[in-house]
Amino acid sequence: MEHPVIRNAKAAGKEQGWIESTEPLVAAVSGGGDSVALFFVLRELYRGPIFVAHLDHGIRTVSSRKDAEFVLQLCKENGIDCFLRNASIPRQKERGESLEVAARRIRYEFLEEVRRKVRADWIAVGHNADDTVETILLNLLRGTGLAGLCGLPGRRDSIIRPLIHSTRCELRRFLRERGIPWREDETNLDSHYLRNRLRNELIPLLERDYNPAVARRLLSMRETLIPCRENLEERGRNAAAFLRRELPSVFSSWDLSAIRRLEPSSLAEVFRSEAKRLGLKTLDFDRIATLTELIRSSQGWRFQWEKSLEIRAGSGYLALLDREIFDRPPDEPLVLEEPSGTVRWGLGTFSWEPAEKGKLGFSDFSAILPSLPEKPVIRSSIAAAGYREIETMPWFYRKGWPTVTIGDRMSWTPFWGNLCKISGKETNSPRIRIQFSPDAAQES
Amino acid sequence: MEHPVIRNAKAAGKEQGWIESTEPLVAAVSGGGDSVALFFVLRELYRGPIFVAHLDHGIRTVSSRKDAEFVLQLCKENGIDCFLRNASIPRQKERGESLEVAARRIRYEFLEEVRRKVRADWIAVGHNADDTVETILLNLLRGTGLAGLCGLPGRRDSIIRPLIHSTRCELRRFLRERGIPWREDETNLDSHYLRNRLRNELIPLLERDYNPAVARRLLSMRETLIPCRENLEERGRNAAAFLRRELPSVFSSWDLSAIRRLEPSSLAEVFRSEAKRLGLKTLDFDRIATLTELIRSSQGWRFQWEKSLEIRAGSGYLALLDREIFDRPPDEPLVLEEPSGTVRWGLGTFSWEPAEKGKLGFSDFSAILPSLPEKPVIRSSIAAAGYREIETMPWFYRKGWPTVTIGDRMSWTPFWGNLCKISGKETNSPRIRIQFSPDAAQES
Repeated sequence: MEHPVIRNAKAAGKEQGWIESTEPLVAAVSGGGDSVALFFVLRELYRGPIFVAHLDHGIRTVSSRKDAEFVLQLCKENGIDCFLRNASIPRQKERGESLEVAARRIRYEFLEEVRRKVRADWIAVGHNADDTVETILLNLLRGTGLAGLCGLPGRRDSIIRPLIHSTRCELRRFLRERGIPWREDETNLDSHYLRNRLRNELIPLLERDYNPAVARRLLSMRETLIPCRENLEERGRNAAAFLRRELPSVFSSWDLSAIRRLEPSSLAEVFRSEAKRLGLKTLDFDRIATLTELIRSSQGWRFQWEKSLEIRAGSGYLALLDREIFDRPPDEPLVLEEPSGTVRWGLGTFSWEPAEKGKLGFSDFSAILPSLPEKPVIRSSIAAAGYREIETMPWFYRKGWPTVTIGDRMSWTPFWGNLCKISGKETNSPRIRIQFSPDAAQES
Repeated sequence: MEHPVIRNAKAAGKEQGWIESTEPLVAAVSGGGDSVALFFVLRELYRGPIFVAHLDHGIRTVSSRKDAEFVLQLCKENGIDCFLRNASIPRQKERGESLEVAARRIRYEFLEEVRRKVRADWIAVGHNADDTVETILLNLLRGTGLAGLCGLPGRRDSIIRPLIHSTRCELRRFLRERGIPWREDETNLDSHYLRNRLRNELIPLLERDYNPAVARRLLSMRETLIPCRENLEERGRNAAAFLRRELPSVFSSWDLSAIRRLEPSSLAEVFRSEAKRLGLKTLDFDRIATLTELIRSSQGWRFQWEKSLEIRAGSGYLALLDREIFDRPPDEPLVLEEPSGTVRWGLGTFSWEPAEKGKLGFSDFSAILPSLPEKPVIRSSIAAAGYREIETMPWFYRKGWPTVTIGDRMSWTPFWGNLCKISGKETNSPRIRIQFSPDAAQES
C-alpha cells in the first residue's frame, strides 16, 4: 500500500496544480526532517527536473555549516544540483524587523532568485500539518481574521507545500522507515521564539489538559473556513472591480460615494483585495478601521498605506497615489512658442502642432484650441486663474496637473476639460492641436 | 460621565433592539456578580416592567439556598417581583447529558416558562465579554466552524445579553463603586469543569506567556467574523429556499440533482439553515460530511437526523421525513362501495362523490375517474400493479402512499398522477370525483 505521506502529497499535488507538471522546480531544503522528507517525496513524485536551494543562515554558526554540508552531500548522492547561499541574517536585519521576519524575507528572496535562474515554475517548501496548526494558533493569539484562521495556504503563486497534509510525526516515520537520516534543527528545541514555545509547551498542554485531538480540530476548522474565505475574497474582487473609476497618474481609484455606502466588512474586503492585486501590504484590522472612519467622515485627508503611497479622497473619488509624484512643486509655466514640439510637464508629456481647419473642441486628453492673439501657456492648475471652478478635479491634482490658458483665462485642462470656454467667433483664428499623455503611476 | 458598563449596555440595547422597548422583561438573576450587575443596569436603563427569575439549582445545597435568599431580598428592596424555582438538577439529568448541559436546559426552560407567564418580550441573561472569550476558546478546543468562532450572539430570539460588551472586571468595579454586594459563585473557583479551567488556568497562562491582550484580540476577531457568518447564513437561506421542492407529508424536501451539484461548504450551509428553520439540532462537521457523501454517492439510503426524523433520497428528491409515519405497514385496500364518503387512508384523507358529466382527468390531489364496470379501490402503491412504473415516485412513498385502481390496473395516484391511463371511450360511463388531502408532516 502507498505510504500515507506519498498519498497526502499526491492529493496536495492535485489541489495545488503541480502533480502533472514537468517544468523545473526548486525545493527548499534546510536539512531538517521536514525538508529532507520533501526532498525524497518530490524525487518519487515530481515529473520535472528538481533543483535544491539551501540557505546557510549563519544564526548557529557551527551547526549551520554542518547543515549545509549535509544538504550538499544529499544532493551529490542523488545527482541533484544544489544552490547554496551564505547569508548572515543577523547583519541583514532591516529596521523594525525581528530576526525571524528577516530570516523569512531573506530566505524567500533567495528562493525566488534561484527560481528565476533555473526558470522554474515552482518553489516547494516543507511546511506540514503541524505548521498549519501552529500558524492558526499563533494568529489566534496575536489577533486575526478569517484569512489568518485558515493558516498556511497550500499554494501561493509559485510557492507550493507538498507536505501540507502530513504531520511532523508521519514525516519522521516515513524517513525512519526508509533509513533516511536528517539533521535536527536545534533552534526547534529552544523555547525562545513564540512559535517554538507554542510547539513545545502550549500545544502539548492543550492536548494533555483540554483535548487530545485539538490539532485535528483546528485542521478541520480550517477546511470549513477556506471556502468562506474564498467566497469573501471573490466578493471583494468583484466589488473592487465594480467600484473602480479611472483617474490619470494614480495606482488605483474608486467611486467615493459608492464606497461610502459599503458595509464596513465589505469595505475591508475591497481594500484587502486591492492590496493583493497591487502587491501591497494588507492593512491590519485597526488601520482598516481608521481608513473606514476617514472615508465615511470627510474629504481632504491623507492616509499612508506604505512608504510614499497614500489614499486620498476628493470630488467623488478615492485614490491611491504616490505622494512623491503628486506633492512635488509645480513646474514653471511654459509658453508654447514653437509651432510644434514635445515636452514633459507635471504629471505627463505634452505634444502639440498646428491644427487643420475645423472645429475647436476637446476630449479627455487632446484639444484643438485657438492660438492667437496670444500663445497658449501650460501652467499648474493651482496657478491657473479658473482652477477653483473645477469642482470635479480632486484637490490632490491641483499642484502637478496642467491647465492650458490663453490670455488671462483657462482654456482647457486634460481629463477635467469640461470647463473649457471656447466661443464660436474664435473658429476662424489659427489653431493648435495639443495632446497630453499622463504618466502611468508605476512608471513615475 | 456615563459609566462604561451603562454605555456598553446602551450600545448593546441598540444592536439587540430592546433599548426603546416598554414590554415586560424577565431578568435571570443568580446572585453572582454578573447577574446582580444585570439587575442594576436594567433598573437604570430598561423602560418596561422587569421581573426576576431565580433557579435554585440545588447543586451546592447550603450555598444555593443562600443565593436564593439573597436574590429574594434584592428584589424585595427594589420592589420587583421574583419567580423562584427549586430544581434538583442532578436528579433531572437526562440520559447522555452532562450536569452542565442539564443545568442549562432546565434553566432556559424555566426562564421561558416565566416569560410566557408574564407575557414578556425579553429574557435578559448576564453573559459578558469574558464569557464570549471563553466560549470562543472552548469551541476552538472542541472543534468549531465560523458560527462557533463568533461566540455568544448578542441576541437569539427573545434572549438578550445586555452586558455582552463589558468585561467581568468592569462589572465588578461597577458594583463596588455603587456599594452593591453580590455572592461569589463557588463553582467558579472550582477547576473541575472545562469552562472554569479555561477561565482560571488557560486564559491567565495565555495572557502571561503569549499575549496580554489575547482576550481583546479574540473579541475583535469575533467582530470581523460576524458579518461573514451573517452573509454565509443569508446565502444558506437563499440556497435552501431556491432548492426546496414540494413533496406531500414530509417536513421538507429539495431538488436532489441541484443539491448534488453544490459545493460541500454550501451544502453544509443549506442544512444548517434548514435545521434552524425547522427547529432541529444542527448537524456537526462529521455528520454533515457523512450526509454529503451519501447525497453524492447514491439513492436508497436513510440518514437519521434526530429521533425518528430521517433524510432520504429518491427519484430526484431529497426529503426530511418522520420514519414513524412513513414506515408503518400499509392500510388494507379499500373498495369505494358507497357513492360518496370520507376516510383516512395511508398518509392522508380521501373524500369522494359522484361527479358531474364532463371530461375524465386529474390534477395533483383530485381526479375524475370512471367508476364502472368495477368500483375504484384504494391500495398502497406497493400493492398496486403498476407501481414499479412510477419512476417519479420516490421509493419511500411506496408503502403508505395510496393509488386508486379500477379493475386490475392502476388509474391514478395523487401527486404522481401522470401515470394515469384513461382512454377516450370511458368518457360516457358513470364517474366519480376523488380528492386526497395529504397530512402535513407536523400534524401526523
